Amino acid sequence: MIKEKRKVEVIGLELPIFKGNENIDLAELIAQYPIEDGDIIVIAETLISKLEGNVIDRDKIIPSKEAIELAKKTGKDPKVVQVILDEAKEVVKVGKNFIITETKHGFVCANSGVDESNVYNGIKTLPKNPDESAEKIRREIEKLTGKKVGVIISDSVGRPFRKGAVGIAIGVSGILALWDRKGERDLFGRELKTTEVAIADELASMANVVMGEADEGIPVVIIRGANVPFGNGKGRDLIRPKEEDVFRN
Amino acid sequence: MIKEKRKVEVIGLELPIFKGNENIDLAELIAQYPIEDGDIIVIAETLISKLEGNVIDRDKIIPSKEAIELAKKTGKDPKVVQVILDEAKEVVKVGKNFIITETKHGFVCANSGVDESNVYNGIKTLPKNPDESAEKIRREIEKLTGKKVGVIISDSVGRPFRKGAVGIAIGVSGILALWDRKGERDLFGRELKTTEVAIADELASMANVVMGEADEGIPVVIIRGANVPFGNGKGRDLIRPKEEDVFRN
Repeated sequence: MIKEKRKVEVIGLELPIFKGNENIDLAELIAQYPIEDGDIIVIAETLISKLEGNVIDRDKIIPSKEAIELAKKTGKDPKVVQVILDEAKEVVKVGKNFIITETKHGFVCANSGVDESNVYNGIKTLPKNPDESAEKIRREIEKLTGKKVGVIISDSVGRPFRKGAVGIAIGVSGILALWDRKGERDLFGRELKTTEVAIADELASMANVVMGEADEGIPVVIIRGANVPFGNGKGRDLIRPKEEDVFRN
Repeated sequence: MIKEKRKVEVIGLELPIFKGNENIDLAELIAQYPIEDGDIIVIAETLISKLEGNVIDRDKIIPSKEAIELAKKTGKDPKVVQVILDEAKEVVKVGKNFIITETKHGFVCANSGVDESNVYNGIKTLPKNPDESAEKIRREIEKLTGKKVGVIISDSVGRPFRKGAVGIAIGVSGILALWDRKGERDLFGRELKTTEVAIADELASMANVVMGEADEGIPVVIIRGANVPFGNGKGRDLIRPKEEDVFRN
């Protein structure tokens, strides 16, 4: 008989659907759930962004000449393109129906993470500073519950080489984001040299399985039992600087 | 009071440590655990590869001139480089201490997935045909348990743009690998256009959190409650062909 050695639970919370104009305290809502020490709370960036008011009214956007040109080239809405450009540090690649940029935060992703889905009559950008947002919510939850937790703000992104989107961590607080396991020994005592694990990205993917997309709408997920070390990890720890990236040089 | 809407369990099994020369039936071992309908069984590629005998004796490798040259350039062991080249369809990028290749399967990864850790005095390659391996194990487990399951064979890989390794699915059987959610509607009825989810990769990352690395040594993980559709998904569904990859053209 094979036994269990370890178990992790991934719990999707039942929350109301937010339009973005509500005045709610997300930490207070989450703290109503019986949080335990070591819980990692993963929150979809789309929820954070809406609550922080990062939804731009379509009527207020006037596309520049550059945006109109890029809109023609890509077949995209010029207003959306304008927001994409406003959010970008650099345009990385452009093609039919896609604009890949490096955002001001340093994320390389499609459309600067700008999104029209799940937003009521507006164009939504990523949170301005996801690490700060994660930190703020973590502190509030810890204060309300008396428990020590981690918080991750997650997004879904496409990737080179592989099809389909996966969850990644754009904001982190309270736990390690990058778990450096160099120096630990493997099963036969040989030293592991290169195993740096993007644990916060893995946790974001883990949460994404429960969040689903669209109809299901579960923007907050609790991961319990993952035993990730507490620490001062940040979402930005996971960004590989352009000069270190062999695929951008 | 906030309630749970959904819960997924990720269960690491207690298995013996395998050296690679044992004559064991992995499906039979796993089937000793009380498997349920819809369970997804994630198995680390390193275990599959060892059981399939994909460990090359160091003493039997004679590095070619090309391997010796590439070893000098990268600071790697010429014997390891020989195996990396044997496993590669194409060398993508080379630098100090790394060789990124496209493997014969089509995976773009460091060192053709060739690995010296957790292998007793040998150099380990990826499974020859991970989709076939997944299929075979799934059929055996289903026969032994009478339950309908999914099987994923997982690996850990680095990525462009982001630091750290994450779990991905190199072999899949019984469930969708790529979950096309195009056409579903979002919370406000707007049509989702582009949400193709690499669900098998997310499940592999999910399992990786429980597997850990090195000492912990949990090579088999059961994911319960993920509600991923049954289907004829393959690990190769997740490979973006070179000609469609904007970062390779």
